[in-house]
Amino acid sequence: MTAATTEQLTGANLVGAADVPGAAAPFRAVDPASGQRLDPEYREADDAQVDRAAELAWAAFDTYRHTGPDRRAAFLETVAAQLDGLGDVLVQRGIAESGLPEARVRGEIARTTGQLRLFAEVVREGGWTGARLDRPDPRRTPLPKPDLRQRRIPLGPVAVFAASNFPLAFSVAGGDTASALAAGAPVVVKAHPSHPGTSELVGRAVRAAVRAHDLPEGTFSLVHGGRDTGLALVRHPRIRAVGFTGSRQAGLALTAAAAARPVPIPVFAEMSSVNPVFVLPGALADRGAQLGAEFVASLTTGVGQLCTSPGLVFLPDGPGADEFVAAAAAAVEAAAGAPMLNSGIASAYAEGVRRLGAGPQVRSVAVGAAATAACGGVPHLFVTTAEHFRADPALREEVFGPASIVVRVGAPDRFAELIEVLDGQLTATVHATTQDHELARRLLPQLELLAGRVLFNGWPTGVEVGHAVVHGGPFPATSAPATTSVGSLAIERFLRPVSYQNIPDDLLPAEIRAANPLGIWRRIDGTLTRD
Amino acid sequence: MTAATTEQLTGANLVGAADVPGAAAPFRAVDPASGQRLDPEYREADDAQVDRAAELAWAAFDTYRHTGPDRRAAFLETVAAQLDGLGDVLVQRGIAESGLPEARVRGEIARTTGQLRLFAEVVREGGWTGARLDRPDPRRTPLPKPDLRQRRIPLGPVAVFAASNFPLAFSVAGGDTASALAAGAPVVVKAHPSHPGTSELVGRAVRAAVRAHDLPEGTFSLVHGGRDTGLALVRHPRIRAVGFTGSRQAGLALTAAAAARPVPIPVFAEMSSVNPVFVLPGALADRGAQLGAEFVASLTTGVGQLCTSPGLVFLPDGPGADEFVAAAAAAVEAAAGAPMLNSGIASAYAEGVRRLGAGPQVRSVAVGAAATAACGGVPHLFVTTAEHFRADPALREEVFGPASIVVRVGAPDRFAELIEVLDGQLTATVHATTQDHELARRLLPQLELLAGRVLFNGWPTGVEVGHAVVHGGPFPATSAPATTSVGSLAIERFLRPVSYQNIPDDLLPAEIRAANPLGIWRRIDGTLTRD
Repeated sequence: MTAATTEQLTGANLVGAADVPGAAAPFRAVDPASGQRLDPEYREADDAQVDRAAELAWAAFDTYRHTGPDRRAAFLETVAAQLDGLGDVLVQRGIAESGLPEARVRGEIARTTGQLRLFAEVVREGGWTGARLDRPDPRRTPLPKPDLRQRRIPLGPVAVFAASNFPLAFSVAGGDTASALAAGAPVVVKAHPSHPGTSELVGRAVRAAVRAHDLPEGTFSLVHGGRDTGLALVRHPRIRAVGFTGSRQAGLALTAAAAARPVPIPVFAEMSSVNPVFVLPGALADRGAQLGAEFVASLTTGVGQLCTSPGLVFLPDGPGADEFVAAAAAAVEAAAGAPMLNSGIASAYAEGVRRLGAGPQVRSVAVGAAATAACGGVPHLFVTTAEHFRADPALREEVFGPASIVVRVGAPDRFAELIEVLDGQLTATVHATTQDHELARRLLPQLELLAGRVLFNGWPTGVEVGHAVVHGGPFPATSAPATTSVGSLAIERFLRPVSYQNIPDDLLPAEIRAANPLGIWRRIDGTLTRD
Repeated sequence: MTAATTEQLTGANLVGAADVPGAAAPFRAVDPASGQRLDPEYREADDAQVDRAAELAWAAFDTYRHTGPDRRAAFLETVAAQLDGLGDVLVQRGIAESGLPEARVRGEIARTTGQLRLFAEVVREGGWTGARLDRPDPRRTPLPKPDLRQRRIPLGPVAVFAASNFPLAFSVAGGDTASALAAGAPVVVKAHPSHPGTSELVGRAVRAAVRAHDLPEGTFSLVHGGRDTGLALVRHPRIRAVGFTGSRQAGLALTAAAAARPVPIPVFAEMSSVNPVFVLPGALADRGAQLGAEFVASLTTGVGQLCTSPGLVFLPDGPGADEFVAAAAAAVEAAAGAPMLNSGIASAYAEGVRRLGAGPQVRSVAVGAAATAACGGVPHLFVTTAEHFRADPALREEVFGPASIVVRVGAPDRFAELIEVLDGQLTATVHATTQDHELARRLLPQLELLAGRVLFNGWPTGVEVGHAVVHGGPFPATSAPATTSVGSLAIERFLRPVSYQNIPDDLLPAEIRAANPLGIWRRIDGTLTRD
């Protein structure tokens, strides 16, 4: 951590425009590479502080949601510019709090600013408003046809839970925050306790943008804390939706709390996925060894701490299968352990690996070099058979970290029955050559029901930010399979449609006025037009 | 009931192609006008029969969801044609089981077939697929940009709960069924026990269309039953979403059961709403008496058994207020009681009226003429003050039937604080002249947060079926405020997006193939086009 960083950090919660020292438990970030505790000390927000942030968000809502597309887009771009302006200060603090390598942290900052700029484009384009006009017909019998217009409005203030594994891109100004702000929703972020300093730096950048665009202070707040702080936020009546990325256990706790409110709210929780990979016979014969090595490169990316890490590979018998396993084993053995994000994740990973290796049905075939870091995570590769895999549901559960199981399937026509037993996934991957296409064509309908993203001849890690991506999927991958937490479609999570009947044109919002002053695409009597 | 009807009805559950006598409790429909029990006897489906219907739906899913737009649209049109073909048989049975007048039943059949034909258009137009293509860039650094394409696929078999109050339009082939079938989802309907014969007639019409288009038998099933049958359906692992219209209590029971499943599923429940009406001073002065009479016409439509019945009217002091109340009271007194849909609804209504009138703060100002029917419902009008209304939360709860409360607001600037205390609503109505526009402009942002549909100078009953309508709204109006259960947008409830990465074009579904063989609107790199 550089001196410059320390000077800028105060340890405060950012409650609207105010720096508020937390009133609950103190804590510090820990550098997972060294085990060193980092300055400054933070304190968790208590219920009154959460209440203040949520009330400020509510007070900001009506002004913020009525910002026009240009102002709102410019605000998002200013957040991005503010992040760019933090430069090395942010990079160094991100590294210190996450143990991630510099290139990854820099890449994540670029991803974060890229997301903000993408949502600025989305806001300006205007299709997200879902504007529809059904023209009236006063002469219709037996009843006149009314003038009906529809647009989407934001649900209200959104609570965003920062993720441990993406201190930038899924955290304070990450995808959930960017999409909620784009939708017109004020945001209260609960920082992840692993990276409070990174969070404070980013939070101050967002606050500076709020100020620069003269938006109400409650448009954005940042609170520190753990489970209690999070639950207080989800239960707060002014909070109207929740974005979350993290463990299944935490996601389900938030979902249950949200459902138990007097007025339930949606929780968009991205939780757990083992991201199965299916290597088809042609691909296996063609490049078994190469695929084995590529697989381990994907598995060890970010020390396996990615939602899309490939935790299962299904290999049919035949040419290339042994070469795949040998190459993967060699790559695992050559891989050095590396610091995981925090000690809790490191010990949960160690326990998960122990559990996987405990049964006699699962054979450990490779272990990486021991890690020197305090929170080190060592890659592990296991092999089992289709029979054992089907028999043991524990093998389908996510182990968060660089461990994976190769399932020797037998005949390739057994893929279908193995897919049947899998839980919902973020991704499903197929490796195939053209000679595999007949089999692939049969598997694809099954895989699209299983996962939010199906990919060919690649690896699931690396989630492109764009318009056509889905980072989501059936339960337990997410609590809300009809949505995505990455990409422009993510804005839809925080919106709901409203219909306006026979309301005079000049009282209506711009996106559904007859003259289409925003020049956006709309459905008029069901037909898309910019007229 | 005509002889022709009796002959066609067997009392069976329609489980795929099979007529299956229910294995659980027997029951009969009752004509609410006469109290007569109607032939034939029905029996509720037991768990095994529900299981069979759900498994058949699952077995049909993969074939049905892959029907192209023309075939699926033609199927929906055939369902409509089959309903038209039932003619008077359906009308007479509908009247006998609901007590509704002939014009209403005929209108409902037209609405039902109209919905089916609207969804046929929607299916052909193709925008519902949400097709998006992000073009690849193999030369991008540091990593090549993948080929990503997105479309929406159906969630799986949908359970539809028929509503008591719309024996056609919200029942067996109503809006939920039409939108689910349009989405590519097989449907298992649980008939409402008030109108099993109407349900069987409509169910047979849908089955005939399934057969005519050579679709798998499980595309549609109809089971009879009550709470147990419904819960078995919601808990069945093959059921992937639920559409419901009914009471808050039943809706919450289904929502809780769906959330408690090993794999939770969404419940789209349309539950309770009091549909507040705000009469602004100019409108009140201009046409107070006329509005009072119109209000009662809306209130007594369908014996008040409409989700959008106006249960609350807010009147400011000033010219026209007394005229409004006097005209409304006169209209209520002139209104005859009429049969309600069933004895349960009639007794719940009587109890609700008793509760409203029990407090000293609420004054009964008019009661309609006593009903002669067995299940008669008599219109009631109450008046209270803003203070009493704010103090008693019970006055905000739906009383299903032709009862309403006029709240004397005092000064018109008190509307805002009264809106604050209201629960989420399906509708909010404003009566205004141009001189009220300044006040209306201030209220509109509050009302759009309160309700799914905001209307001017009309009455909330009468929900137009089209593209721009929203029949939905914040909890407790619905369990899923981001959706609508009427209109073309309803199809989105049963879909989720899937992303396809680097998959060869000829393995992809037609809607996202490069050549756009369906000729639909798509987003390519974020831009809408039909290229």
